Amino acid sequence: VVAEIISVGTELLLGQIVDTNAAYLSEALAELGVDVFHRITVGDNFERVTAALRSAKARADVLITIGGLGPTQDDLTKEAVAEVFDEELALDEPSLRFIEELFARRGRRMTANNRKQALIYAGGRPIPNPHGTAPGALLEKDGKLALSLPGPPREFRPMVDGFVIPYLAERASGRRMILQHRVLRVVGIGESAIETRIADLVAGVNPTLCTLAHTGECHLRITAKAPSPEEAAALIAPLEAEVRRRLGEAVYGADAMDLPRTVVAMLRKRGRQLAVAESCTGGGLGALITSAPGAHYVFLGGVISYQNAVKARQLGVDRALLSEYGPVSAPVARAMARGVRERFGADFGVSITGMAGRGEPG
Amino acid sequence: VVAEIISVGTELLLGQIVDTNAAYLSEALAELGVDVFHRITVGDNFERVTAALRSAKARADVLITIGGLGPTQDDLTKEAVAEVFDEELALDEPSLRFIEELFARRGRRMTANNRKQALIYAGGRPIPNPHGTAPGALLEKDGKLALSLPGPPREFRPMVDGFVIPYLAERASGRRMILQHRVLRVVGIGESAIETRIADLVAGVNPTLCTLAHTGECHLRITAKAPSPEEAAALIAPLEAEVRRRLGEAVYGADAMDLPRTVVAMLRKRGRQLAVAESCTGGGLGALITSAPGAHYVFLGGVISYQNAVKARQLGVDRALLSEYGPVSAPVARAMARGVRERFGADFGVSITGMAGRGEPG
Repeated sequence: VVAEIISVGTELLLGQIVDTNAAYLSEALAELGVDVFHRITVGDNFERVTAALRSAKARADVLITIGGLGPTQDDLTKEAVAEVFDEELALDEPSLRFIEELFARRGRRMTANNRKQALIYAGGRPIPNPHGTAPGALLEKDGKLALSLPGPPREFRPMVDGFVIPYLAERASGRRMILQHRVLRVVGIGESAIETRIADLVAGVNPTLCTLAHTGECHLRITAKAPSPEEAAALIAPLEAEVRRRLGEAVYGADAMDLPRTVVAMLRKRGRQLAVAESCTGGGLGALITSAPGAHYVFLGGVISYQNAVKARQLGVDRALLSEYGPVSAPVARAMARGVRERFGADFGVSITGMAGRGEPG
Repeated sequence: VVAEIISVGTELLLGQIVDTNAAYLSEALAELGVDVFHRITVGDNFERVTAALRSAKARADVLITIGGLGPTQDDLTKEAVAEVFDEELALDEPSLRFIEELFARRGRRMTANNRKQALIYAGGRPIPNPHGTAPGALLEKDGKLALSLPGPPREFRPMVDGFVIPYLAERASGRRMILQHRVLRVVGIGESAIETRIADLVAGVNPTLCTLAHTGECHLRITAKAPSPEEAAALIAPLEAEVRRRLGEAVYGADAMDLPRTVVAMLRKRGRQLAVAESCTGGGLGALITSAPGAHYVFLGGVISYQNAVKARQLGVDRALLSEYGPVSAPVARAMARGVRERFGADFGVSITGMAGRGEPG
């Protein structure tokens, strides 16, 4: 199956926004095994949208448009699709009622032009949009499939994950299929060392495994294609177990459990409390920990000791230690951690000292 | 003048990277007054790159390709441009020497395929790339201008700013023109309030003025088009003065002088030192301040007092105050700031207390 993406919006051609939608959709299509050979970006211009659709229709099986479904005169994607497929647009009553109810709930008056958003291909169907007023629209005609998706990412992404991918999977295989991800989070091993240990597992087809480098950690993403979440989970489980066996404790968490959340959850489970002493990071570690829900159960706070005098006075670090080893040294780091633990009455004290990265002490 | 952008790279169609280059170039072209009606994205495939170039050549005056200039077999943009314009590629000796010297400086062996990067249109010219091994290439033929730019953003962006925009400006006006920006940074006034005060100034053509909302601040970008940096600066100065007159001290800095840098520079100029007391932000304010060069001259450090007990013990906040007003109150904030200033021997104490944003205290 070959798909083509047509991004519609003058703001894209003016560089006012970056087309993250196209990348999001492209990645999902690639995982599904759908080929994309062309992506066209055009402005809010009927002739150019129509021309782009005609060339896409000549080349691809599936035409996916992004944007141009709103209520204004500029929004003309459905009109262009209708033109190219010689199709009528008709008012879809359920979509209209959904939009009316949305306005009522928000306590706003629905202007007449919003009815335009409920116009759907007469021989097609709407794609529900729980996150906005403009439904998507689907048309199967002339042996082609046209999908019209909304532009705002918070409406677009759920529609891709929740409708487009399952629909295309079902269409291709005759069975409804979903894509399910599991992200294993790894610290303490570099990306290339990880790849060496799991190289043979990366070759799999379903589930697939890929490594993604992030700041300070590496993610291993397992993706399974299956008719149901349960079957996808059953495909993922043995691969996850094998990865965990090979990487051991370096796999510290999964999915949304990032490092701060994991640390907070572990401390909470054990009923322990933490304090920090930070030099070069200036409070960055404390800020990270407090980003995790439940931080107030386990995080007492800490001392930002950017200057030596603060290390001595507020953390009780021996001045002799500071002059003998310098502030960036293991003995001083130890004394900082011990100092904040004792003074704050914490179970654990964690300290950081180092160069601020501009050749400045800190 | 009409330009068309052709982004080349299979990784774009697979969604592995987001095409920020195209947006960057589009914005610069829009500011210059060059129209872009189509952007095409194709993979590393000779036939498809060639077909995209042919349709662009039929529609536009200027064809700008992004990517595909590297040393590998996948890199075939110049070959495709040569095909479409019936042009030869010839080895450009200065480009070859530049690449050889770059490898020598990096102490790496230059493999034979790197010579490919020095192939330039026989009737055209290279575009110097100080940030990488692949020069850009330029061809004027058949009444069209073809510009071939490298894909890595840190090579691409300087080439757009330093070559493409001045070249197109000169070509359009017969004079070499540059675009120069000045960004005024504003805090303490919301975007809509700012727009009300400067609405009449936004209508200007050269220089232009636009507002950009950012987290916690607003940017006002002034852009001037002129033959020289001096003339651009002379266009910018009166508009900047008028904006500053209307917004007063809310304009706290310009260009790279963000809020932390401005605070650090002001303290340094006055020979004063700062300490912070943070509750809900958990160290985020300290981390921001230490992000500025020279922070170690003016920033002593601080106390992260995430819990009430820490506010009392480490900052001397009266427990009666805490129970009477609660930790999220002006009296407690004042006591925290006073406490950290006195205990750290700072000239200024700054404190933050509030809700952590999840209904949790902090």
